[in-house]
Amino acid sequence: MNIPSKLFEDAVEAFSSLPGIGKKSALRLVLHLLNKEKEFAFQFTEAIKTFRANIKSCKVCANISDEDVCEICQHPGRDHKTICVVENIRDLMAIESTGLYRGVYHVLGGVISPIDGVGPDQLNIRSLLDRADTGEINEIIMAISPTIEGETTIYYLSKQLESKLDLITQIARGVSFGGELEYADELTLARSIADRQPYSKNMTSTG
Amino acid sequence: MNIPSKLFEDAVEAFSSLPGIGKKSALRLVLHLLNKEKEFAFQFTEAIKTFRANIKSCKVCANISDEDVCEICQHPGRDHKTICVVENIRDLMAIESTGLYRGVYHVLGGVISPIDGVGPDQLNIRSLLDRADTGEINEIIMAISPTIEGETTIYYLSKQLESKLDLITQIARGVSFGGELEYADELTLARSIADRQPYSKNMTSTG
Repeated sequence: MNIPSKLFEDAVEAFSSLPGIGKKSALRLVLHLLNKEKEFAFQFTEAIKTFRANIKSCKVCANISDEDVCEICQHPGRDHKTICVVENIRDLMAIESTGLYRGVYHVLGGVISPIDGVGPDQLNIRSLLDRADTGEINEIIMAISPTIEGETTIYYLSKQLESKLDLITQIARGVSFGGELEYADELTLARSIADRQPYSKNMTSTG
Repeated sequence: MNIPSKLFEDAVEAFSSLPGIGKKSALRLVLHLLNKEKEFAFQFTEAIKTFRANIKSCKVCANISDEDVCEICQHPGRDHKTICVVENIRDLMAIESTGLYRGVYHVLGGVISPIDGVGPDQLNIRSLLDRADTGEINEIIMAISPTIEGETTIYYLSKQLESKLDLITQIARGVSFGGELEYADELTLARSIADRQPYSKNMTSTG
C-alpha cells in the first residue's frame, strides 16, 4: 500500500509496532479512527497514556496496581497466610478468573532461565523470602508452568523456602477437562495416574 | 479475565473498542505496553493523537493529506486532466499501489445507498461536478466496486457528468488473475466474454 500522508503513515507504523498487528490491520485501525470523531481517538490515546504513566507495581506482591498496594493484598476477606506464586500478571488474572482462590499472590516476573540470562536476582524472589520470614505464612503454592525453566524455578524456590515454612505445594498436573487421553503427552499422563484422587473428591473447594 | 486495576482495565477497554481486537488481544497489547519502556507507549499514543488532530482532507480531491492540497493533486508529473473516482481512501491506496495510474483522484466518501440513508448530497459529488465544469478534464474513470450501490452511483454520476466532458470510463470487470473460470460468478464471466480484448494487448500501460 502506498500511503499518501506522513501523519497517516506514522499512525500506521505505531499500530504495526504492536505484536500481532500487521501493516494491513494497522491500516484498517487507522482508517477506523479517521472515520470516527476526533474525540474517539483522543479518548483512546488518553486511556493508554494514563495507564502507562500511572500504573504501579504492588509493593507486596508485584501485581499491577493503581495504588502502592494492590486490591488483592488490601482485601480484608482474603487469606493472607496463603501465597500463590505466579510467573506473571497474566497467570494471576487467569487464576483470579476461576473465582476459587481466596489467598494472595506473589508475582515473580518470570522464571529462572540461564539461557535467557534470567537468574534468581532478576526475579522478585528476595521479597518472597522476606514475606516467608515474617512467620505469618502457612502455605506457599507454586503455580508455575510445568516447563524445564518452571520446574527449575520451583526447585530453587522450595530450597530457599523449606526452612521458613511447613507447607509448600504445587498446582496439580494432569489431563485437562475435555482433553482426550490419547493426545495427552506421556509425562502428563504418567503424572496424572501417579497423582490419582478418590473419585468423590470435592472439585470446587480450594485455597 | 478478572482485571486487577482500573487503569489497566481502561486501557484494555480502549484497545477492544477498535474493530477486530477482542478482549484477549487487547489484554495482550496492554501487557506488551507494560513490558516496554513508558516511552514506547507515549510514542505510540503521540503518533495516533498527532495524526487524528492534524490530518486534513484535500480541498481538491478529498484524499487524506498533511496539507490543504494532497501530494497527488500537487504533483507536477501527474496527469491532472484524468480523474479516477473512488469510493474511499483505501481504494485510492490500492490503485496507487499498482504504480501504473498517473492521473489524479476524486474520493466520494461512499456510494449512494438509500437503505443506509446515503444520498448524493452526503457524498463529495458537488466538488466533482465543479472539477468537470472547469473544462480542463479529459476523462473521468469510475473505479467503484461493482455492487448494486456502486452501479447506482456510477449511473448517477455519469448522468450528471455526460454533458460536461466527452470521456467517462469505468474499470474493466472480468476474471481475476489467478482466478479459476469455474468459480467466477455468471455475471462476471458474461461481462468478461462480452468485453474480450485482442490477445496482444499491452497490459502495463494505463492512465
